[in-house]
Amino acid sequence: MPSPTIDGTQRGYVIPIGGAEEKLDNPEILAKFVELCGGKEAVITVIPTASQLDDTGSRYQKIFEEIGVKKTYSLPINERSDAQDPGYVKTLEKSTGIFVTGGNQLRLSTILGGTPIAKTIRQLNAQGVHYAGTSAGAAIVSQHMITGGSTGIVPTEGGVNLAPGMGLINTIVVDQHFNERNRLARLLSAVSYNPFLIGIGLDEDTAAFIDHDNVFTVVGSGAITVLDTSDIEYSSMAEARTGDALTLLNVKMHILASGARYDISNRKAYVS
Amino acid sequence: MPSPTIDGTQRGYVIPIGGAEEKLDNPEILAKFVELCGGKEAVITVIPTASQLDDTGSRYQKIFEEIGVKKTYSLPINERSDAQDPGYVKTLEKSTGIFVTGGNQLRLSTILGGTPIAKTIRQLNAQGVHYAGTSAGAAIVSQHMITGGSTGIVPTEGGVNLAPGMGLINTIVVDQHFNERNRLARLLSAVSYNPFLIGIGLDEDTAAFIDHDNVFTVVGSGAITVLDTSDIEYSSMAEARTGDALTLLNVKMHILASGARYDISNRKAYVS
Repeated sequence: MPSPTIDGTQRGYVIPIGGAEEKLDNPEILAKFVELCGGKEAVITVIPTASQLDDTGSRYQKIFEEIGVKKTYSLPINERSDAQDPGYVKTLEKSTGIFVTGGNQLRLSTILGGTPIAKTIRQLNAQGVHYAGTSAGAAIVSQHMITGGSTGIVPTEGGVNLAPGMGLINTIVVDQHFNERNRLARLLSAVSYNPFLIGIGLDEDTAAFIDHDNVFTVVGSGAITVLDTSDIEYSSMAEARTGDALTLLNVKMHILASGARYDISNRKAYVS
Repeated sequence: MPSPTIDGTQRGYVIPIGGAEEKLDNPEILAKFVELCGGKEAVITVIPTASQLDDTGSRYQKIFEEIGVKKTYSLPINERSDAQDPGYVKTLEKSTGIFVTGGNQLRLSTILGGTPIAKTIRQLNAQGVHYAGTSAGAAIVSQHMITGGSTGIVPTEGGVNLAPGMGLINTIVVDQHFNERNRLARLLSAVSYNPFLIGIGLDEDTAAFIDHDNVFTVVGSGAITVLDTSDIEYSSMAEARTGDALTLLNVKMHILASGARYDISNRKAYVS
């Protein structure tokens, strides 16, 4: 569950990005994130834990600096003991925006899960600090996080692997590189397990800017596929054997390109 | 438009198959087709025109004979003049079942389109002769036939190429190898052009047995994905530039595994 918001404050934006966002020519998504965080006055802290490359944190610091941010930090959290470090927590608390890079989402959940850093991220977001994460950093936003699964269109029993994520928004399950890696089958499998979940499939260079009312706007060059199984009339999930194709009647799907909006709480898509 | 049925007769089954149907061990789809056509007493005529392999027709004759059919024919129609041959039309008229093989659906439309053979297929089907076609032979069932397009999930303007097909059933657009070749994007593009169309995405070794009431039952090891855009609230198709991701609000999708049914006329899915 998301941390409760404190009276008088609004939750910060939660911005899952589908990976491979434009970083140089016209970094629309990152620039819009910076703008929300205060533009030049923004303080952006990068968490590169998902990546195993040494320079991922400094690379993103440089990108944010090129966009105009004066103050950036990167927290070199590589193991669970790092995520207990009171100094890192203090740095994090100075942020107006937190950026979590791509890599392996299981590194995020296994290294950050249950630590002061994870707790602080959740609390800061509840207090108005904006959170953006790309690829693995997007997946971890989910309470029920996809860690793997089968590609293609048709869902199967056992066709998706879930693990507990950070749960900044608990009713959505986020998938990334969605069109590029043909991930409809695994996202459909996930939302078929329990239709309270809304599936959010993010293409590369595409982000959902989710505001404090749980309404998101699509930003970027691709699309976001929304899967809503709340009106489903029948699912064979409970009876199917592992690997069997499923029968699912009445899945609602929205394909949302740049500028389109979706109200997560009311399960309603808009174009204006 | 399908040929009108004659009083007292029912249209034969129309059976699009998603390609790569099982032919040896347990040829469920082909055996069910044979059963409908009269079992041992069936007279099956194979039309291998889509294929450019010399033995496609004789190969299917052998498969049907192994299933128990005593009388099989193959019509070696390789150019338009062949499709005018009165002898071939006479052979066709003896059939209780017509089987159109895979290959290139543009060979079917360019060679058969507007010929006595095409006319006879439509008339015979209207009079109760069953039609089965795999891959290209499934595509040609559509009035608006998919001949190519982009793969993936997210539809685009220009993301599908259509050509006139045989139109045995004029409200559906059939796609094949659907899960295997990730063809959701192109089928979604097709049904977005005009929502009167229902998209039928057939996995390999999977068939829609469409009866005279336009209700089909799924047979085979994969699934059929049905796309219904009739309740769509918004489509950006008319404004989008070629290659742009589309916004489509409120697409209805059904995933139907073996045994599930769909009523094309009433746009309703069932499991019993």
